[in-house]
This record gives sequence, structure tokens and C-alpha cells, in this order.
Amino acid sequence: MPAAQLALDLVGSAVFALSGALAGVRARLDVFGVVVVGTVTAIGGGILRDVLLGATPPASLRHWFYLAVPTVASVVVFVWHPRVSRLGRPIVVLDAAGLGLFTVTGTRLALNHGLGPAGAVALGILTGIGGGVLRDVLLGQIPLVLRREIYALASAVGAVLVVAAHEAGALTLAWEIPAAVAVFVVRVLAARRRWSMPTPRMPER
Amino acid sequence: MPAAQLALDLVGSAVFALSGALAGVRARLDVFGVVVVGTVTAIGGGILRDVLLGATPPASLRHWFYLAVPTVASVVVFVWHPRVSRLGRPIVVLDAAGLGLFTVTGTRLALNHGLGPAGAVALGILTGIGGGVLRDVLLGQIPLVLRREIYALASAVGAVLVVAAHEAGALTLAWEIPAAVAVFVVRVLAARRRWSMPTPRMPER
Amino acid sequence: MPAAQLALDLVGSAVFALSGALAGVRARLDVFGVVVVGTVTAIGGGILRDVLLGATPPASLRHWFYLAVPTVASVVVFVWHPRVSRLGRPIVVLDAAGLGLFTVTGTRLALNHGLGPAGAVALGILTGIGGGVLRDVLLGQIPLVLRREIYALASAVGAVLVVAAHEAGALTLAWEIPAAVAVFVVRVLAARRRWSMPTPRMPER
Repeated sequence: MPAAQLALDLVGSAVFALSGALAGVRARLDVFGVVVVGTVTAIGGGILRDVLLGATPPASLRHWFYLAVPTVASVVVFVWHPRVSRLGRPIVVLDAAGLGLFTVTGTRLALNHGLGPAGAVALGILTGIGGGVLRDVLLGQIPLVLRREIYALASAVGAVLVVAAHEAGALTLAWEIPAAVAVFVVRVLAARRRWSMPTPRMPER
Repeated sequence: MPAAQLALDLVGSAVFALSGALAGVRARLDVFGVVVVGTVTAIGGGILRDVLLGATPPASLRHWFYLAVPTVASVVVFVWHPRVSRLGRPIVVLDAAGLGLFTVTGTRLALNHGLGPAGAVALGILTGIGGGVLRDVLLGQIPLVLRREIYALASAVGAVLVVAAHEAGALTLAWEIPAAVAVFVVRVLAARRRWSMPTPRMPER
Repeated sequence: MPAAQLALDLVGSAVFALSGALAGVRARLDVFGVVVVGTVTAIGGGILRDVLLGATPPASLRHWFYLAVPTVASVVVFVWHPRVSRLGRPIVVLDAAGLGLFTVTGTRLALNHGLGPAGAVALGILTGIGGGVLRDVLLGQIPLVLRREIYALASAVGAVLVVAAHEAGALTLAWEIPAAVAVFVVRVLAARRRWSMPTPRMPER
């Protein structure tokens, strides 16, 4: 793995851990619970991806830094959470970068393992949103990503772009970067302008 | 896989997706959430089965139609849910057919992977009920199948019949069909007559 | 596996099943639900461990007694739960023994599969606490282990001791027993003296 991608990967993990640990603090977990929820948010998507692809043990258990970075980020949140939770906008921006990166990596790994377009898109999205889904399930909440906000759709855009490039025989790093950037842009715009997906019409009420 | 079984498999997926997507609509998820919960309900049991057997990537990620059918079924529910939710009885009947089919397939695959009778029954039931359990966990509810109604028991009847035929050295398609039918009959009768499993005596209240 | 460890393993499973089944009774599940939650509590940690290590099908599905023992224990709880729930202290003590045993086994298996120190500690803790986490998720509750009480910390102590012995080239059964005993002692003392982990300061309230 090139050094640049590893660095981005760890930044993405750290930011996902921040969001998970903050949610843990709000649910008044103890320090261990905050670290667990932060770490699961950071590496849960990648673990689901690796288990479904049969690439076990998952990468995040094989390399200590994938566990150390989210642990440290979660402890930072536990200690300084009033300050961290004031960082609303920077967290949304970094989280969008993590979403783009994880989606693209997951989609590419799925294609490398021989999945077709539909399976690769599904697995790419799962890699991007899986950690957040596990976070919400552990906290007894319906996953935020299923309820509102353009989050999964941003991830889907990136996964489709990667698969399209692959089908065209043109999947290289030069195509992955714009795909990750597309996720990032859609997600940041949606967050800033409060775009939402449609919810069911409820005519009877 | 014979064409007849594939067709039945996809019908089962579609019906499970209907039940999942309807639950998602009732929880007021957005369109993406409805599709995710519908699809997870349809393919979740088979994915758990394949992961536990080490048959990765799971079949439902390797063939696009296993993702496309539940996605389309979920979108149909999202758009026309008032009409779909009025189909109470047909859905129970089709769902019972899906339960029978998924249970029998899961039990047979477990036996093929070398599991013994107890493990094969457990995995057969998990294949049948796993999607519904994941649906309820994603929606923040205690899984319905653990609380009431003869649903898992119907699945258990079919799994035991398949294992018994296998132990007798007689497991062929001619035995699988009556096993699936048995699940179907038990489930439909239980739903119609509102049979329930016993719940704990609570003498202190 | 030596007979002594198998016996301990089954005792640990039985006790974990008791705690799971009691929680199921309190949530007023039916008899099937009580058996499922009891069994998942007993074997869930080991299943997560085996799936993450790629050791599929999991041991608890390959050997019938790993399913039979928790099933019987759960049925016992279903029928005699008022009496079982009065056994507060013995259950805490046996549960602590199970926690120690499962942690040490999980950590050792992770090391055998080539995981490094951080991954082995994480997997050892997951083996110890995973069943209880799944139990609480199935019952729609935030996992107890994330909220309060020295439970995961006790598990972490044992996992670190096993990894330290392994790093020193000295991991034998003679080192595993004291590691499991350390988990047991920390857990029983914490339960008796109501030690807790720190929770976040909430200065704004």
C-alpha cells in the first residue's frame, strides 16, 4: 500500500473514531465503552468488508496502528469532549474524506476479489457506512444513515464511479482519486445545504 | 442450481424484502434506508450462513440478481406502500414459502460443509430467520421471532426433517420438498390460528 | 484439547447461557427466544472469534455439545427462573470464571493465527465479552459492558498477560492458568466492591 494511502486511511480512521467516541460520550458510556464504540466506528466497515470477502484475519486486526489510532482518538474525546464536540464543521469535512476513501478502497478490494458490479458497489457502500451502522446499533439507535441525510448516496456515487472505471478497463489510482473526491463533494454539499433523501409519503395521517 | 430452485429462491428474497421494506417504511426511514432494510431482510440469513460456513464471498454478493430483486421489491414498497401493506394474508403465505425454502437450503448446505446434525439444524434455522432478526436489530426492536408466534419452530421442523433424511442416507430433492412444505404448513396454520410459544410464568407479579 | 479445558469450556458456556437466558426471561421472550439468547450469549464470543480468524465453520457449530449445553441451561432457566435468579452471587462467580477462560483461549488462538499483540488482545477481549454484547443488542439494550462495571477491564488484564508471556517466549498452560485466574480475581473483586470505570465528566449540566 502506498504511504500516502496508508496516511489517508489512518486519518479516516481517526475521524470516524472521533464521531463514534462522541456518540459514546453522549450515551454516557464509561471510558472502555467510549473506546470500543470509537474503535468499532473506525474499523467496523473494513472488518465487515474483510469478513465478507474471506480476507481474514481483517487488516485492522493484523496491523497494530489500525487499533492504536482509533483508541488514542477515542481517549482524546473522552478527556476533552466538550472541546471536541464544538468542532462541528471540521469533523463533517474530515468524516466526508474518510467516507470517500473507505468507499473507494472497499469497492476496489471487492473487484479484486472477483465480485461483479452490483456486489462491488454494495460492498463499497458497506465499507463506507458499516462502522457508523455498528456504532448506532451498539448505542440502541436506528442507524442515522438509514433515516436522513445524503450520506449513503454520496458513498454510492463513489462506488459506482470506481466500478464504471473498472468495467471500462481503466481503474487506476488516477480514477480512484476523483471518485473519492466526488464522494467528499456530494457529502459536504449535502451536509451544508441540509439535503435529504425522500421519506415515505404518509397519506393516511 | 436447478432453475426451479433459483426461481423459488428469488421469490423468497422478494417476499422477505417486502416485509423488511414495509418495516422500514413504518420506521419512517428514507428511500435508501428502506432499500437497505429490505435487502438485508432478504439476503441477511444467507449471508450469515455463508460467512459461518466460510463460503465467501457470499452467494448473494456474487450474483447481481440476488441484490437486484430485493432492491426492486423495496422500491416498490417505498412508492406503493399503502397498497402493499393491505396485502396482509398473501404476504404471510409467501413469507412462509420463503422461510421453508431458506431453511431447507441452509440446512443442506451446512450438511454439505460437514456440520453434524445439531450444527446443521442451528444453521438452517439461522438461514431462515436471520434476515428478520437483522431487520429488527437495525430498527432498534427486539427480534419478533424471539418474542411471539410460531415462526422459528416452523423453521426448526424443516431443518430437523432434512437432517433426519440425511442421517438415513436418503437426502434428495424428493425429501427436501416435503420438508419445505412442512415449514410452510406449520407457519401458515400458526399465523392463521394465532398459535404462540409459551412465555415465562411470572408468578411474582 | 485436554479434557480439563473442555470441561471448563462447557461450564463457562453453561453459565453464560444462564445469564443470557435470565435476561431473555426478563424481556418476556418466548421459550424459543430464551434459548436463542442464552445460546448466543454462550457461544457468540467464540463465533465472532472464529469468523474473524477465518476458522470456519466455528467450533461451536462443529461439536454438538457446544449447542446442547447452553440449550439445556436455557431451558432450565425458562422453567425454574425464579429460583435461578435468586442465585446472584454464584452466577457472578461462575461468570467470572467463564470470562477468564474465554479471554485466555481467545487470545491464545489469535496468537496461533499469527495476530500481533494488539490484535490478539482485542480478539481475546472480544471472545470474552462478545456473547454478552450480542445478548444486549438482541434485547435492544446498550451493552452493559460498555456502560459500567469492571468487566472488560478484567478481560483485558488476562489478554495482556497472555500476550506478554507469548512475547517472552514463555506461553504455556502454566502461564495461561494464572492469566485466567487474574481475570477471575479482578472481576469478582470489582463486582463485590462495586468498582466502576470512569464515565465522562459532564461539566455543562
